[in-house]
Amino acid sequence: MVCQYGEQLEKLVKEAEPYAAEGKVADYIPALAKADQGILAVSIFDGKETCFSAGHSTEMFTLQSISKVLTLALALMDHGEEVVFDKVGMEPTGDPYNSIAKLESLVAKPLNPMINAGALAVSHLIKGESTEERLERLLQLIRKMSARPSVTYNREVAQSEFNTADLNRSLAFFMKQHRIIDENVDQLLDFYTKQCAIEVDCDDLARIGFVLANGGKNEEGEEIIPFEIARLVKTFMVTCGMYNSSGEFAIRVGIPAKSGVSGGIVGAVPNSIGIGIYGPALDEKGNSVAGMKLLEALSSYYHLSIF
Amino acid sequence: MVCQYGEQLEKLVKEAEPYAAEGKVADYIPALAKADQGILAVSIFDGKETCFSAGHSTEMFTLQSISKVLTLALALMDHGEEVVFDKVGMEPTGDPYNSIAKLESLVAKPLNPMINAGALAVSHLIKGESTEERLERLLQLIRKMSARPSVTYNREVAQSEFNTADLNRSLAFFMKQHRIIDENVDQLLDFYTKQCAIEVDCDDLARIGFVLANGGKNEEGEEIIPFEIARLVKTFMVTCGMYNSSGEFAIRVGIPAKSGVSGGIVGAVPNSIGIGIYGPALDEKGNSVAGMKLLEALSSYYHLSIF
Amino acid sequence: MVCQYGEQLEKLVKEAEPYAAEGKVADYIPALAKADQGILAVSIFDGKETCFSAGHSTEMFTLQSISKVLTLALALMDHGEEVVFDKVGMEPTGDPYNSIAKLESLVAKPLNPMINAGALAVSHLIKGESTEERLERLLQLIRKMSARPSVTYNREVAQSEFNTADLNRSLAFFMKQHRIIDENVDQLLDFYTKQCAIEVDCDDLARIGFVLANGGKNEEGEEIIPFEIARLVKTFMVTCGMYNSSGEFAIRVGIPAKSGVSGGIVGAVPNSIGIGIYGPALDEKGNSVAGMKLLEALSSYYHLSIF
Amino acid sequence: MVCQYGEQLEKLVKEAEPYAAEGKVADYIPALAKADQGILAVSIFDGKETCFSAGHSTEMFTLQSISKVLTLALALMDHGEEVVFDKVGMEPTGDPYNSIAKLESLVAKPLNPMINAGALAVSHLIKGESTEERLERLLQLIRKMSARPSVTYNREVAQSEFNTADLNRSLAFFMKQHRIIDENVDQLLDFYTKQCAIEVDCDDLARIGFVLANGGKNEEGEEIIPFEIARLVKTFMVTCGMYNSSGEFAIRVGIPAKSGVSGGIVGAVPNSIGIGIYGPALDEKGNSVAGMKLLEALSSYYHLSIF
Repeated sequence: MVCQYGEQLEKLVKEAEPYAAEGKVADYIPALAKADQGILAVSIFDGKETCFSAGHSTEMFTLQSISKVLTLALALMDHGEEVVFDKVGMEPTGDPYNSIAKLESLVAKPLNPMINAGALAVSHLIKGESTEERLERLLQLIRKMSARPSVTYNREVAQSEFNTADLNRSLAFFMKQHRIIDENVDQLLDFYTKQCAIEVDCDDLARIGFVLANGGKNEEGEEIIPFEIARLVKTFMVTCGMYNSSGEFAIRVGIPAKSGVSGGIVGAVPNSIGIGIYGPALDEKGNSVAGMKLLEALSSYYHLSIF
Repeated sequence: MVCQYGEQLEKLVKEAEPYAAEGKVADYIPALAKADQGILAVSIFDGKETCFSAGHSTEMFTLQSISKVLTLALALMDHGEEVVFDKVGMEPTGDPYNSIAKLESLVAKPLNPMINAGALAVSHLIKGESTEERLERLLQLIRKMSARPSVTYNREVAQSEFNTADLNRSLAFFMKQHRIIDENVDQLLDFYTKQCAIEVDCDDLARIGFVLANGGKNEEGEEIIPFEIARLVKTFMVTCGMYNSSGEFAIRVGIPAKSGVSGGIVGAVPNSIGIGIYGPALDEKGNSVAGMKLLEALSSYYHLSIF
Repeated sequence: MVCQYGEQLEKLVKEAEPYAAEGKVADYIPALAKADQGILAVSIFDGKETCFSAGHSTEMFTLQSISKVLTLALALMDHGEEVVFDKVGMEPTGDPYNSIAKLESLVAKPLNPMINAGALAVSHLIKGESTEERLERLLQLIRKMSARPSVTYNREVAQSEFNTADLNRSLAFFMKQHRIIDENVDQLLDFYTKQCAIEVDCDDLARIGFVLANGGKNEEGEEIIPFEIARLVKTFMVTCGMYNSSGEFAIRVGIPAKSGVSGGIVGAVPNSIGIGIYGPALDEKGNSVAGMKLLEALSSYYHLSIF
Repeated sequence: MVCQYGEQLEKLVKEAEPYAAEGKVADYIPALAKADQGILAVSIFDGKETCFSAGHSTEMFTLQSISKVLTLALALMDHGEEVVFDKVGMEPTGDPYNSIAKLESLVAKPLNPMINAGALAVSHLIKGESTEERLERLLQLIRKMSARPSVTYNREVAQSEFNTADLNRSLAFFMKQHRIIDENVDQLLDFYTKQCAIEVDCDDLARIGFVLANGGKNEEGEEIIPFEIARLVKTFMVTCGMYNSSGEFAIRVGIPAKSGVSGGIVGAVPNSIGIGIYGPALDEKGNSVAGMKLLEALSSYYHLSIF
């Protein structure tokens, strides 16, 4: 439906692109720092064809926090809601994604699975005998969703993230003290940083978004994620998917979406399309500046808000 | 559409009713304390007919925090988004509705219009020469939405609320110190407590919810609230409409809704129906226990979740 | 003992004086804003004679937060420790003096009587049929301590403070909601702002400090404050007398002291001398910049630290 | 001076002893859990003779948090005030000793060296090529202060503490992320937990306290700690030596003191005596219940308060 408007898509990208100049590429690890600040790319998948912008839509980037929604889906498939939400809450928070203060005042249970503490608690739940097995299980889910069997993670990025993950170690040890997690912290961090380093392009993200949009099924009707879990994941994308801009994003855009500090955003318009965006210049809260603008324009032009 | 299932509605109410026993009627003022803990009533309006449960659906109750969404709509109609969101944020918060701590750490701007501080800041913006005029303007909006010209407020409840509003006074003076508001605090509290004391029944709430669900128009297609404002209000209902259970409610129910400590809940299923519920027994976060259960059952049975 | 070193005192003042340039006179009310930023004056009373610096030691200024130690003494004389410390804690805090967040997390009991919330709770306890009577009782205590029967308050300052006391109103209503206080808030604020506006000069402060230093007795051995209460007050001066610089001040200076935003500081060296200082240029935490430097120099030169 | 009253000391111990029943022995590691809840022992050293209670005054126990004052002294001797207070603040806090929330709101610098975060930052500064060398340097200081060359640490306790130190790891990683510390966290924890496991008896603590009381010199006049550092350490003992009971302890007792979860307390009455106490039953804030009572009785009977 959207894809017939290929020309319109190009036009919206061109209008949003200049906002990249207001952002700043993440620079806490070299692999992210070398991204091209000016890029803005988009793919849209409607179950039949993929519509994409010219230029950079096949550029690879890492999932970073986008992985949180996929790990959450897998943890729910592994254990069900009761076990997962015994470890992590369901409430949005006005605090930054890496905050530890709330953990303390709330007796250590992270407020939701989209903040780092919550994502670590969720990753802890992923089944598997070894980090390799857990990672392979997550990769298989992502390969099915993206329909690209070669999806894997970037070793260099994973290593860099592992080396600079002291704040996440702090969160993990805090939760270990309070019995939210009980595995070796460096082992958990190894798994967590590898998840974050899984590489995709905009087409992959659009297809991943489509599966969530389509009630967990791919375009051929194959169930990849149970309907209820796909719905639950989309709900978290609305209430806490865009860090502590989620409330404003719900108002301005109204599309279930999840961003990462690589500049990627996955969007899932229920019963309609999946959207993959890449724009590495970030605002101060960690969301792609031009990517947010583009989503706002897409939502407005094609009336995609769920509200 | 739903209304043909009158029998089914009655059945769902019967199943949810026993949960009232787990809750507790608000007792900080006498008028609320004397509510009948066991009541659960519902009305649904689909633009053509109103479907309601037998028994208590014409029982009157006060809006309390439900008024926050209506005052927000009026403030946006009075001033536009820019002015309103200069005074109040758009982000959900994991804190209780009456928290003052976040005001302090965020340089005094309330996080969103659904917490008390934010609602006070929004009320402050309502135009009118006097409290009477401001209240009359709000009542006119509500009368149009509910299609009941006799809607007014309960003087006894308003007076009781005014007498016990010290925490709201504290919030208001805090914001006055930080120049979020600049009117006389007792005048603002007078207006605010009268809003909260506006009386409706389930039918009224169902019609109010329908206008929001229907893009701001009533069943005859008359625009009562501009489309964009109706959308924005529904978004806040999802991200912060059910106090600090909003995240869980979005997951379990997925209907834009707003609750009040009287036990009322208004629901607005986009492009579909308005729902009015009354069940005065509250959980510890201030939401109607049986009302939440009923909404979950309705959402599940009729597939009403927006996600 | 110190007073024989009049020349030395003048020298220390001259050395500390230039630091006033680094500070800023309080400007939230006109009466404070018009103070001369460059002033630094000191008086020392050893029970026999008063030693003072040339220039400004007879300049009048208002007590402001210095009144907190005197109100505390009077509340303890009125009610005893048990009643007072049921309303207010004994623990220092790293938060600013006007913080409300801690009230919320600690179930509303202020951490100590030197922060505004605690001082309001203490003022609430002062006995008297009317604001006039309560104020008169406090003035009588201060007149006895300072040996100046004409001590009174500055009406203009009191009125200005009352008009701009919205943050204190916020704190008071918060405590009223939580039953820490139960009187009319504007009545309490009237009393509180008049206390803060009591006028003294450096000589008065030196004598007030001497009574505290001398176990509650004046130079003639007359008991004005019971020994235990004088000790308790001095302890609060050490742990929380200098806002959230108290810890550093204890280390650098080691003299029980209390400052006010007028730029006044009272010091009480146990069993030795009382010190009165006036230097209206404040640091960002609200303490007299040059006054703190002068106290550090005095402590170092005359070995006045209690540690 | 005190020691002549051996009989009186025994009497005060007998009176304080029953309060041990109100407390609870620390049980997070086995070595602490097996302490005898009913014990209360005291030694007092006045520079000439040691006066001690009958019974348990030669029972060995570990320093735990008492080590914080000794590590602080050594860090100050190693680097001077400027370097140390660049890493850690000087302000007391109303928060519990193991709080991480304040770190976050204050840009990661711990408020003072007596809370765990601050103590870790101070330990990080201790000079030495290896953990062994750093520990040996600290032991040498303690051996000189206690005049017992055999003082060493308890390996079993150190190992247990290391194994259960996840909260301290969390604090350390948090500070590493924010560049307060830059060494390997497990290496720092190894050093830190060994410090905490240094074993002493009441006589040792009394002599350690005496050196602090005596301006850093032992009874023969030999300088072990520079005068200014001894003073500074005593100041921290007053403002934050008894966890978040420090304010109340200063008021009720007024003796510079530091407690540990083993139930030990060291006291230092300036220019007078050192006190060592052992009473393993703790109150909820982590201080020896009977030990605090005994100190209050000693202070009252012998007029030991510095205020």
